[in-house]
Amino acid sequence: MATADLFEKITHLTNASKDANHIHVIIDSDTGIPDRTAAILGLGPDPTSELILAAKRLENAGADILLMPCNTAHYFYPAVQAATKCPILHMLRLTAEEIKSRGNIKVALLATDGTIKTGIYSKLFDENGIDYMLPNASEQRLVMSLIYDGVKADNEDYYDVEPIKKALENMRGRGADAFVLGCTELPIAFEDYELDFPTVDPTKVLAKNAVIAAGYELRPGK
Amino acid sequence: MATADLFEKITHLTNASKDANHIHVIIDSDTGIPDRTAAILGLGPDPTSELILAAKRLENAGADILLMPCNTAHYFYPAVQAATKCPILHMLRLTAEEIKSRGNIKVALLATDGTIKTGIYSKLFDENGIDYMLPNASEQRLVMSLIYDGVKADNEDYYDVEPIKKALENMRGRGADAFVLGCTELPIAFEDYELDFPTVDPTKVLAKNAVIAAGYELRPGK
Repeated sequence: MATADLFEKITHLTNASKDANHIHVIIDSDTGIPDRTAAILGLGPDPTSELILAAKRLENAGADILLMPCNTAHYFYPAVQAATKCPILHMLRLTAEEIKSRGNIKVALLATDGTIKTGIYSKLFDENGIDYMLPNASEQRLVMSLIYDGVKADNEDYYDVEPIKKALENMRGRGADAFVLGCTELPIAFEDYELDFPTVDPTKVLAKNAVIAAGYELRPGK
Repeated sequence: MATADLFEKITHLTNASKDANHIHVIIDSDTGIPDRTAAILGLGPDPTSELILAAKRLENAGADILLMPCNTAHYFYPAVQAATKCPILHMLRLTAEEIKSRGNIKVALLATDGTIKTGIYSKLFDENGIDYMLPNASEQRLVMSLIYDGVKADNEDYYDVEPIKKALENMRGRGADAFVLGCTELPIAFEDYELDFPTVDPTKVLAKNAVIAAGYELRPGK
């Protein structure tokens, strides 16, 4: 769903009035790539070689620019980028730049245990002088549940969102101006479950930058 | 958007609770393929060679089954299928079978001028003993406008749907039990514009059959 979400956002953000005005997009949604969070926590196999194979397949299929719609996978970015001649747009760096451009705001990082453990976001926030906070341990469990039991398990109809809603409200109370949806399942969760909070959506940031990098125009007003 | 819609439907229809339970999907959304309707009406270049190239790229990328989320493109199906070893699921044949399985209903075919002109759907309806009707000339212009000025131009916010709504009601009055959404932009239009009519959605039929053909289980209740 995260890959479909990125594909849709690229399509919607492109200033196009017919098929031929859109960007040629090639997708390799390889569900066999080992879970990134499990690997980082030492609970599962390393996905690096599979990520590199996917990048090479896309390069061989004619791609000029690569996108990786998984925040946690960016932990493996240096190895994947080193293995391909195509530039890979770095979703997290672009997100940090987007937050910086919004001025003096404090963000709360919502992400998998894996992403948080690596510190890839917090390092970028520090480098860019961005004020941020993390969920406490019980809030973090609710974020993980939203991602794994909600979106990844496709439980749209019967997942109970009240606990995570309350957690988000508590973080707002502790000073969060906006939530960084630092797992590509989260923009889907926020939309499907109608979690109506101010956000920074890295998938949308990546889609926007992809349209520009591909030499296309953004739809006016986007 | 039609390709993203098929990708989403495949994902939602698969009985999966984590990434690894999903089907490996490869997409080549080649926006350079000439407009199929224009070609059939003699107003534009033949897309056959581009369709074949796309099929070969997917075959080379490791695809076992091919899907073509464009009804009109099925006019060129025999040439494309002859050029690849991978079976291409025939969206229109599968849709005719789906309608037949629903029993004794009369359908109205909503499709591009190109699809209607070729008679690919009406031939399949006749072969399967399906009772069907076509929009009249002014209704057909509204269908084309919905596809080209509405969805393909991504005019979600300001496209006036009242005329097409009225046309659909008129067809209901003339005996249509359900509308065949015979252009892959139409399921998107019916959802985005909240056109609340009974339908047969070939994209969903194709997604369902793809899940089964790939050897995966359908989500219970789908």
